Amino acid sequence: MKLDISRLQRTIDQINGIETTQEEGVNRLALTDGDMKARRLFKEICSSIGLKIWEDEIGNIWARKEGLDPTLPAVLCGSHLDTVPNGGRYDGLLGVMTAVEVLQLIQERELEHDHPIEVVVFSIEESSRFNLSTVGSKALTGELNPSSLKNCIDQQGKSLYDVLLKKGYFPDEVEKIKIDPSQYKAFVEMHIEQGPVLYRESIDIGVVEAIAAPIRFQLNLLGEEAHSGACPMKMRKDALTAAAEIILEIEKKGIEESVHQTVTTTGICRVFPGAMNVVPGEVDLYVDIRGIDIMSMMRAVTDIVQKVEEICKKRQVQQIVKIISQEKPVLLNKRMMEAVKENCRRLGLSHKQMASGAGHDAMNIAKILPTALIFVPCVDGISHNKKERVEARDIENGLSLLYETILTLAQKDEDLNLEKEADV
Amino acid sequence: MKLDISRLQRTIDQINGIETTQEEGVNRLALTDGDMKARRLFKEICSSIGLKIWEDEIGNIWARKEGLDPTLPAVLCGSHLDTVPNGGRYDGLLGVMTAVEVLQLIQERELEHDHPIEVVVFSIEESSRFNLSTVGSKALTGELNPSSLKNCIDQQGKSLYDVLLKKGYFPDEVEKIKIDPSQYKAFVEMHIEQGPVLYRESIDIGVVEAIAAPIRFQLNLLGEEAHSGACPMKMRKDALTAAAEIILEIEKKGIEESVHQTVTTTGICRVFPGAMNVVPGEVDLYVDIRGIDIMSMMRAVTDIVQKVEEICKKRQVQQIVKIISQEKPVLLNKRMMEAVKENCRRLGLSHKQMASGAGHDAMNIAKILPTALIFVPCVDGISHNKKERVEARDIENGLSLLYETILTLAQKDEDLNLEKEADV
Ligand SMILES: [Zn+2]
Ligand SMILES: [Zn+2]
Repeated sequence: MKLDISRLQRTIDQINGIETTQEEGVNRLALTDGDMKARRLFKEICSSIGLKIWEDEIGNIWARKEGLDPTLPAVLCGSHLDTVPNGGRYDGLLGVMTAVEVLQLIQERELEHDHPIEVVVFSIEESSRFNLSTVGSKALTGELNPSSLKNCIDQQGKSLYDVLLKKGYFPDEVEKIKIDPSQYKAFVEMHIEQGPVLYRESIDIGVVEAIAAPIRFQLNLLGEEAHSGACPMKMRKDALTAAAEIILEIEKKGIEESVHQTVTTTGICRVFPGAMNVVPGEVDLYVDIRGIDIMSMMRAVTDIVQKVEEICKKRQVQQIVKIISQEKPVLLNKRMMEAVKENCRRLGLSHKQMASGAGHDAMNIAKILPTALIFVPCVDGISHNKKERVEARDIENGLSLLYETILTLAQKDEDLNLEKEADV
Repeated sequence: MKLDISRLQRTIDQINGIETTQEEGVNRLALTDGDMKARRLFKEICSSIGLKIWEDEIGNIWARKEGLDPTLPAVLCGSHLDTVPNGGRYDGLLGVMTAVEVLQLIQERELEHDHPIEVVVFSIEESSRFNLSTVGSKALTGELNPSSLKNCIDQQGKSLYDVLLKKGYFPDEVEKIKIDPSQYKAFVEMHIEQGPVLYRESIDIGVVEAIAAPIRFQLNLLGEEAHSGACPMKMRKDALTAAAEIILEIEKKGIEESVHQTVTTTGICRVFPGAMNVVPGEVDLYVDIRGIDIMSMMRAVTDIVQKVEEICKKRQVQQIVKIISQEKPVLLNKRMMEAVKENCRRLGLSHKQMASGAGHDAMNIAKILPTALIFVPCVDGISHNKKERVEARDIENGLSLLYETILTLAQKDEDLNLEKEADV
């Protein structure tokens, strides 16, 4: 059964009508005008189809369709509306509007379901503005308090706490919104992959088994500045050539650990003094190692640090390694994965069990609820970019799959034994 | 015969008393207050020992001691007084003040010499302020005109032309100061090495055989931005790992060509977008290749460009190579070198024939006059830095050598056959 996506495409276009231009892409940075207008429009759309709507203290928006038994825990689905600066048309928005479309279809078709179904729009998912990602879903797990919101400062010097206050939210009461897990049966997020795997391998659906966590470290390399003409090669302590060797070792380690879905990236390389006629005396590298297999990640870190020592010793360059962050991968619920796969099979969709390299609200919610994260391909894996695109057939596949999955989860008989089981 | 350097050290300290602090080093940026004060003090010192002084249209300062035959061409020696920002105490200044000390010694000892002797302070040697180096000596060879001075703009937006006017010089008449080679017999510049070779090899004197010229190019590498977590290693077009391979090839080529005194440096590496969670999509490298053997330099460039193509092809990264500048090395006069070496032997100074990796006023004057460039060691090769140091014995050696060399050149009988011979 293929579902018609014309209405879904219209609502997506409607929200993307806000603060969007051909040249600049989509600009709905968290809690800016663009984001606030999109929230308003989202509430209007939900309201027009008869959903019950409310917002919580940190700005998560909730829309509920009652089930046959309102006392049963709700099935939750959703994603986010905010974007990075000059972002794309589908990141977050696709998951949100597809969920609304699913509810509208259930409504129109007058399908019965035991459990209530709720759509959530997580507030402040992107870290671009306040340097903290997935704020809304973090708050739902009880990770945040007013002072953590005060510590997030945007480029204008405004704190997330103050901006929330100004927009009419209640940052002082952020701790109150912690979800009571007995109120929810499961959570499903649908999102574009934001990577090239599904698109390049022509696979319809990614069933996420784990969300990778980054280990990040800074590498400060201290060589010796010298005149590019006057210092012979053999007398140099060139921090940049040392860095180059290290960058290649980091890449090599990532390739070796690829089988375990670990990836390694040097994203920042700053060179001092940075002049044509000076042998670089100092380099800062920032390294990001991600994976879902903590042993593989730790092996990568250990091996890289050892290589750094060898290279620096050989080149008489001093090194300082500083761990910036070290998070744990989040494994998703196996029964939820099976339910999604079963629906893929029923719909004839090809699918792949895979890791999510990027973080998502699902990784927070997975700590308290049985959670599924479903990926649809985006063209060439391009995301966080105005060129972000999703093909119509993939929107269709995503809608069909989410529709089936939510209906499955909302039936009492098919409760999948989603009791509290260790998620990790 | 060892000469006493206490007076020389005093005059060096006197000039370094201007705009100098422990923390900031020496600040006599061209035509700033510090430079103007140093010029004034230099003229006072020369005047106090009875030299005839004048300044030319671009601010080169001249001090002359008459010879027995005033119609003979003069022997010229000198260097510069200006510094880079936060510069050292000896770069330029050592050559200038040692030359003045030589004249004062000749004066006191009432030594007779046939040829007149002149000391020159070249104006605006450092490129730090106006992005053009050795301006004073370039003007003396006829290379500059008023419009080239108008094109040199400092960070405050002031042109070299306007600043010269404001300081009382005559930039419109810069073309008039071109040296008539028949008026000068030879030029000698003494300078610190600004590299580590003499100091590390414990050699007293460097006799420069050639001044290296840089070939500079920019390398733009265009890969593909991707999410550091979501893009598998094998699907990446990482511009930074491509750059790292290239940086190591550039270094390797420099090591291979070391026997020909060619050196290769990647001094600038800019990475875009430069974020922890983004695989770099673009890198700009700036490469400086210096040498005195044009074949070796060209071989290095050709090999590097070929390696760049191979690496970029393999990594599916696009490259643009843009030559920024391509200058020819300047070979110095062999008879002048022999005269300097002969004096080293007479004084018992160890010496090494070597290339100058850095540019100096001597490279311009060498195009019109028989020219010698003499290096003294500086501690650890550190220069253009407040930590720049020269040991007392090296100042002593430099003074003794310059004294002997100027006296040799100023005798009529020892005219060394310094006729116009091809310098290159
Ligand atoms: Zn997103
Ligand atoms: Zn100098």
